[in-house]
Amino acid sequence: MIDLNSDLGESFGAWTLGDDAAMLDLVTSANVAGGFHAGDPATLLRTCRDATARDVRIGAQVGYRDLAGFGRRFIDVSAADLTADVIYQIGALDALARTAGSAVTYVKPHGALYNAIVHHRDQARAVVDAVRAVNPSLPVLGLPGSAFLEEAESVGLRVVTEAFADRAYTPEGTLVPRTEPGAVVHDPDVVAKRVLQLVTTGTIEAIDGTPIVVPAETICVHGDTPAAVAMAAAIRKLLDAEKIHVKPFV
Amino acid sequence: MIDLNSDLGESFGAWTLGDDAAMLDLVTSANVAGGFHAGDPATLLRTCRDATARDVRIGAQVGYRDLAGFGRRFIDVSAADLTADVIYQIGALDALARTAGSAVTYVKPHGALYNAIVHHRDQARAVVDAVRAVNPSLPVLGLPGSAFLEEAESVGLRVVTEAFADRAYTPEGTLVPRTEPGAVVHDPDVVAKRVLQLVTTGTIEAIDGTPIVVPAETICVHGDTPAAVAMAAAIRKLLDAEKIHVKPFV
Amino acid sequence: MIDLNSDLGESFGAWTLGDDAAMLDLVTSANVAGGFHAGDPATLLRTCRDATARDVRIGAQVGYRDLAGFGRRFIDVSAADLTADVIYQIGALDALARTAGSAVTYVKPHGALYNAIVHHRDQARAVVDAVRAVNPSLPVLGLPGSAFLEEAESVGLRVVTEAFADRAYTPEGTLVPRTEPGAVVHDPDVVAKRVLQLVTTGTIEAIDGTPIVVPAETICVHGDTPAAVAMAAAIRKLLDAEKIHVKPFV
Amino acid sequence: MIDLNSDLGESFGAWTLGDDAAMLDLVTSANVAGGFHAGDPATLLRTCRDATARDVRIGAQVGYRDLAGFGRRFIDVSAADLTADVIYQIGALDALARTAGSAVTYVKPHGALYNAIVHHRDQARAVVDAVRAVNPSLPVLGLPGSAFLEEAESVGLRVVTEAFADRAYTPEGTLVPRTEPGAVVHDPDVVAKRVLQLVTTGTIEAIDGTPIVVPAETICVHGDTPAAVAMAAAIRKLLDAEKIHVKPFV
Repeated sequence: MIDLNSDLGESFGAWTLGDDAAMLDLVTSANVAGGFHAGDPATLLRTCRDATARDVRIGAQVGYRDLAGFGRRFIDVSAADLTADVIYQIGALDALARTAGSAVTYVKPHGALYNAIVHHRDQARAVVDAVRAVNPSLPVLGLPGSAFLEEAESVGLRVVTEAFADRAYTPEGTLVPRTEPGAVVHDPDVVAKRVLQLVTTGTIEAIDGTPIVVPAETICVHGDTPAAVAMAAAIRKLLDAEKIHVKPFV
Repeated sequence: MIDLNSDLGESFGAWTLGDDAAMLDLVTSANVAGGFHAGDPATLLRTCRDATARDVRIGAQVGYRDLAGFGRRFIDVSAADLTADVIYQIGALDALARTAGSAVTYVKPHGALYNAIVHHRDQARAVVDAVRAVNPSLPVLGLPGSAFLEEAESVGLRVVTEAFADRAYTPEGTLVPRTEPGAVVHDPDVVAKRVLQLVTTGTIEAIDGTPIVVPAETICVHGDTPAAVAMAAAIRKLLDAEKIHVKPFV
Repeated sequence: MIDLNSDLGESFGAWTLGDDAAMLDLVTSANVAGGFHAGDPATLLRTCRDATARDVRIGAQVGYRDLAGFGRRFIDVSAADLTADVIYQIGALDALARTAGSAVTYVKPHGALYNAIVHHRDQARAVVDAVRAVNPSLPVLGLPGSAFLEEAESVGLRVVTEAFADRAYTPEGTLVPRTEPGAVVHDPDVVAKRVLQLVTTGTIEAIDGTPIVVPAETICVHGDTPAAVAMAAAIRKLLDAEKIHVKPFV
Repeated sequence: MIDLNSDLGESFGAWTLGDDAAMLDLVTSANVAGGFHAGDPATLLRTCRDATARDVRIGAQVGYRDLAGFGRRFIDVSAADLTADVIYQIGALDALARTAGSAVTYVKPHGALYNAIVHHRDQARAVVDAVRAVNPSLPVLGLPGSAFLEEAESVGLRVVTEAFADRAYTPEGTLVPRTEPGAVVHDPDVVAKRVLQLVTTGTIEAIDGTPIVVPAETICVHGDTPAAVAMAAAIRKLLDAEKIHVKPFV
C-alpha cells in the first residue's frame, strides 16, 4: 500500500501548466499550489473541486513569494516573514478546499524552499512553526533525514517521508544532483519497476547498483509534461496490476 | 451603543501606512487587509495579534488584486475570479487571525471594490458568494442601499450598515462625491458631533442642512494620517464622555 | 504588399505561451510584450533576439499592470499613471531590443487596453502621450476609427491601421463581438482567402455578406495555440503563392 | 570636491518612503529605483523630473524582483535572468529620465544585490553584462574591492568607488556588519566630520581608531527617515562651509 502525490494547481491566469485532470485520475494526494509560486485563486478552486470529486486528498504546496521564478530560486527570507507567508498560503488554500467540500490535510514545501530546508534549519523551523500555528495535527511531507522533518518531528508533527520515482539515489540515500549524469530516470517502465520494488521491499537500487533502504510513505510523481503524465500512468498501471493498494496516507 | 471600524494592516514590506497601534486603542473593529491591495503576511499577523490583545474584532478587508493601485482602481474582473480571490483572502487572513488567538468575524470590501459593488450587481454577488462559501454566518459590512447589502440580505447573510464620520451626505442619503466642495469634513470637533448625533438620533445633517435618517451599526474612521488618528481620538473621546457604549457589532 | 503582426514574448517564468519560434518564421512584425501583462525580461530578450535574427520588426506591446489577468481586464487607471506605465514598458523593451541588435519600432496596446482606447479618450490620450514622450517618430498600431488612432493622428504620430484575419466584421466595419455567433472564423482556408481579398481589394465581406472597405496596413494573426500557428501558416502560404509581398510596415 | 548620492524614488503606489524633495536639494546624484524592489512608474517619473529640475544626476538603482522584500533579501537568481532583469530596469528608467529631459548616467545595485555582488562573482558579472549591453559608457557605482567593481573594471566599465557616511569601518577597510555594536554612526555632527576628513584626506577612522585609506568618489547618504534627512543636511552644510565643491561624478 502506497500513496502517490503530485504538484498540481500550478497554472496562473492565462498560463496553463500540466494536465491536472489527467493526474488527478492517477494520484491519491494533490499538492495544490498556495498562490505564492503559482496558482491564481480561480485555478486553485477548480483544482480543489476536481480533486474532491475524485476523492484525492488536498495538501498545501507552500513556496517562496516568487511568481517570476516559480518558487525555484532560494530566497533568504527571514524566519518571521516565512512563517507568516506559509500560514497565509495554508489558510487561503484551506478556505478554497473547504468551498470544494474538502480541506487541507497536509503541507508540502515547494521547489527551492523544499530543497533549502533539507539543510537550512531556520527556514525549516519557520515552516514547522507555521504548520503548528495553523493546525498541529496537519502532517508534513518531506525528504527523509531532512532538517525539516527533524524539526517537525521534534515538536510532535506527523512526518510523512517521500521518495522520488524518477530520481537516482546515491549509495548514501540522498538524491543524485540534477547536474550529474543519470540523475533523472526517463524510461517509464524502469521508473514503474523502481516504484514497485520500493513499495514491496522498502529498497531501491542506488546509482552504483547498491540496494539501499529508502523510507517512503508516499511517492512523488511529476505531471507537468505529457511525458510525465505517461510515466505516472505507467507507475499506476503496474501498481494496480500487482494489486498494490494505492491510497492516501491520511 | 455603536461600533467604530477602521482600515488596518495596510503596510507592505518596507512601506508603512497608518498608525495601527494608535488606532487599535480607539476602534472596536479592525478591517485588516487581505493581502491583495495591501498587507504582507507578517504585517497582517502582527496586526491580528495587536487587535486580539486589545479585544478588537478582526474583519477581512478584501480588495482587488492590485498592489500598485492599492485597490483603488476599478478592475473588470469576472465574477468567478472575484469569488475565488475573495475566498482566498478571507481564508488567508482567518488563518493568521487564528494564529493570533482570534478569527475573522466579518467581511468588508475595500476601496474600488467597495465602491463598485454599490451598483455593480455581478461583482456584488461574487463577493456574497465568496462569503457564503467560506462561512454563511459571517456578517458583511457595507453601504445602506447598496447592491452588495441587497444581495447579501437576499441569501440570508447578516448585513451591517456603515456610516462615514467625515463625509458629507446628500439629502437623498448618498455620499457627496469627493470631487465636490465640502465632500469631506476636516474639523475633528464637527465630525465628533456628527457621530454623536448619528448615534443618539439615527440622523445626520445633509450638506444642504436637511436632517436625514442614516442607518448605521458601525462608523468608519480613517487612520492613515496623524490628522486622521486625531479625528478618531476626538470621536472616541466625545462618545466616551457622553457615555455611549463603543463596542463591536459582533 | 502587407505586414503580418503577432503578439509574442508572452511567456512568463516557468509558463510558456504560444510558439514564438514558429510565428517568427511567418510574420514580419512582432508585438513583444512589455512585462506588465506578460513577459519576464529573460523571455523578452530571447524573443527580441529571435526576431532580430529573422529580420522581424519589434513593437512594444504595452498593457495594464495585471499579470493575473493577462492584461485582459479593464483597469480604471488614471491617465498620469497609465502614461508612466507605458513609458516604462517601452523603455524596458527598447533596451532589451537594442541588446539584441534591434530597437522598438512601433507601439501596440494589448488586450483590454487595446479595447478600452477604442472609446476611452482619457486612456487613449495617455498612451499617445507616452509614445510622444519616448519618441514622437514611433508609429502606433490600432483599430481604424478608434479614439486611440484619432488622438495619435491629432498630435502628429504616424498611425498604422490593423485588421483581424479571423474576426467577422459588421456591415458598419466594426468587429462582431466575440459573444455573438460567427464572431470568430476558424477555417484556415477561409481566413487566408479573406486576407487575400483584403490585401488585393481593400475590402472584406461583412457577416451579412456586404462587402465593406477596411483600411489595413497590417493584419494581426494569433499564435497562441497550434491551431493559430497553422492558420498563420495558411495565410502566409497563400500570400506567398499569390506573390503578395509580405514585409514590415516600417 | 565630492559627489553625494542617495537612494530615491522608492515610494510605491499609495506608500511613501523618504522625502525625495528634501534630499534632492542636498545630493548631486539620485539613485532612482528601477521598479523591481520599489518605485511605480509614476513615482519614478516624478522623481526624474524633480532631479532634473535641480540638475541632480540620475542613476539606475537596480534590484532583485522582490517588492515584498524591498530587494533586501538575497535571491539565487540565474545570471541570465539577472542580466535581463537589469537591462529591463535600466531601459525603463532611462525612458522615464529622458521624458524628464535627462537620462540614466550611471548604475548602482540596490540592497541585497549590492551586498551579494561584493562576493558573488556570477551575479556580479551578470550585472556588468547588463550595463555593457545597454551602454558600455555608463559608470557603475560600488564598494571598493568588490567582485562587482573588479568585474566591471576588467571589461572596461568606469567604476566609481563609494563610501558610507554613517557606517563604521573595520581596520581592513570593510564595513562593520550592522549586527555588531557601533556599526552605524547616528550623530549628524560626527558623521559630517567623518565625511569632511574623508574628502580632504582620503582617510577615515576605523572602529578601533586606526586611520585607514578609503577610496571614494561619492558618498552615500540615506534619506528614508526625517533623521536621515537631517544628517544629510548636516553633511552638506559642513562641506559647503568648508568650501568643498559638491558636484556629480559624471
